[in-house]
Amino acid sequence: MARAVDVPSLVAQARDGQVRALARLLSLVEDASPELRAVMAALAPHTGSALIVGLTGAPGVGKSTTTSAIVTALRARGERVAVLAVDPSSPFSGGALLGDRIRMQEHATDPGVYIRSMATRGHLGGLSWATPQALRVLDAAGFDVVLVETVGVGQSEVEVASLADTTIVLLAPGMGDGIQAAKAGILEIGDIFVVNKADRDGADATVRDLRHMTTLGERQEPGDWRPPVIKTVASTGTGIGEVLEAIDAHHLWASGNGHLQVRRRKRAAEEIEAIAVTALRDRLGSLREGRRLEDLAADVVDGTVDPYAAADRLLAEIGA
Amino acid sequence: MARAVDVPSLVAQARDGQVRALARLLSLVEDASPELRAVMAALAPHTGSALIVGLTGAPGVGKSTTTSAIVTALRARGERVAVLAVDPSSPFSGGALLGDRIRMQEHATDPGVYIRSMATRGHLGGLSWATPQALRVLDAAGFDVVLVETVGVGQSEVEVASLADTTIVLLAPGMGDGIQAAKAGILEIGDIFVVNKADRDGADATVRDLRHMTTLGERQEPGDWRPPVIKTVASTGTGIGEVLEAIDAHHLWASGNGHLQVRRRKRAAEEIEAIAVTALRDRLGSLREGRRLEDLAADVVDGTVDPYAAADRLLAEIGA
Repeated sequence: MARAVDVPSLVAQARDGQVRALARLLSLVEDASPELRAVMAALAPHTGSALIVGLTGAPGVGKSTTTSAIVTALRARGERVAVLAVDPSSPFSGGALLGDRIRMQEHATDPGVYIRSMATRGHLGGLSWATPQALRVLDAAGFDVVLVETVGVGQSEVEVASLADTTIVLLAPGMGDGIQAAKAGILEIGDIFVVNKADRDGADATVRDLRHMTTLGERQEPGDWRPPVIKTVASTGTGIGEVLEAIDAHHLWASGNGHLQVRRRKRAAEEIEAIAVTALRDRLGSLREGRRLEDLAADVVDGTVDPYAAADRLLAEIGA
Repeated sequence: MARAVDVPSLVAQARDGQVRALARLLSLVEDASPELRAVMAALAPHTGSALIVGLTGAPGVGKSTTTSAIVTALRARGERVAVLAVDPSSPFSGGALLGDRIRMQEHATDPGVYIRSMATRGHLGGLSWATPQALRVLDAAGFDVVLVETVGVGQSEVEVASLADTTIVLLAPGMGDGIQAAKAGILEIGDIFVVNKADRDGADATVRDLRHMTTLGERQEPGDWRPPVIKTVASTGTGIGEVLEAIDAHHLWASGNGHLQVRRRKRAAEEIEAIAVTALRDRLGSLREGRRLEDLAADVVDGTVDPYAAADRLLAEIGA
């Protein structure tokens, strides 16, 4: 038997700034442990204060360096910052983003900064499942800002946007074609665009392309947020102040007009739905130790029942 | 009011070779029409005879040309063939793969060949939802072979493999790095590997790499299927005969040892589960015209309830 977990004290300790308790809570989330429900119930009253900032971009644009520079800037204002580095392509946890961690080691001894890597490949439901709950832990632990960093591959960048209050899309010069290709996805999710490595050739062209593309499309109403395009050289800190101002401005805009509340409610609705659907899927799969679904599948292959009728029978048997 | 659909006659007509009835059934599937259940019930007794062959590969490897050449070869044996070209990146139906259709126009006047393009982007549940049902229609319509062609992007190639009895992975020379990168995905799903454009430089190296990689890994037991690697020049028909022999050999192997039945049952189980989960999701979402989930989401944002407790309440309200 595993030792029983005293969830309320863990939560109290994490809120008190104890790093080991925080790490333990995040592990309970990542491992989908039986205590997860108790953890979420204990956290609920303490959530809602952190600003969740998403940061996404293709490999090589300088995500870790930019994250690190933003952390430095936030720390200079005295804010407590957590970084959740999500790697949707890796099945390995913790150590997966070791390189990133090393690059961020300047913050390693700062008690006001907490950095955690999380792998989601192979995870039940992927990013959408574990990440919101990890964010909930960090939010309840009292961080002022939680930065969620993901590699922009496929669906993950869209998912990170749905998790964040403010989403930063990072690019680097010379990705003109890449912008075109990724256009549909990237333009819709970015609240702030950052062209990093702006000391390189082609930075102005990339900025121009982005400005052009962000002024097209549907964002035309007065009062709408117009995503700024900011040039940075994260390795020297150039432009990071402007990024912080943009984060503040977006937060002010979104809190003032109710947009933030709408986004958070939408996020919570998706989270509730995902939990409910997972629970139902578990029940369907466990009918007669899983043999019920197997038997029905055999009937469908034999043509004696169609998949809809089979689904109806399954549903009836879990009482739905 | 839309005109009522006489599903049994549509099915009878489609089985009788009437193309308009077949197209209508496929549209009912694609549009997730209310008649879908009746269609699936009417089709069930007639399914299970077609061999479903999946064909996937990166853009530019010659998927359409290869498909067309395989169709020609199957027609020479007198088999009726349907081609379902699934484009997971396009939100447009029918016309999406116009280019492909044009390239396949040599079969346009052959009543033994039916070609249909299907777009799945934006579709509820994507490829996994609509494609199996479209395959069911083509199977029940009496085609001997149904070729499902998808562009190998992201998840779609893995999904096509789960839909097919036999999966062909197409590559072209000079994709050595690509093979390495895609290795994990590609090697697991291919029952047959085809290196097309084999008259180009680097074909032998690609074949060698593939042979090396397919002999590594876990497929070591006697009686296991060893995926062949075949060189083709689809535009001239070179090697297509060998591809057909490999399809036959894999089919024989899989039918003989029960593997085919296992694969089909697994597929049916996934289909049943997907239908059941979609039905449950609809019920959750429609509680009090959708306002119930919204209200609970607001409570979660306010911290008065946690997402698990909210999910429990939703489930209780749909009686599950």
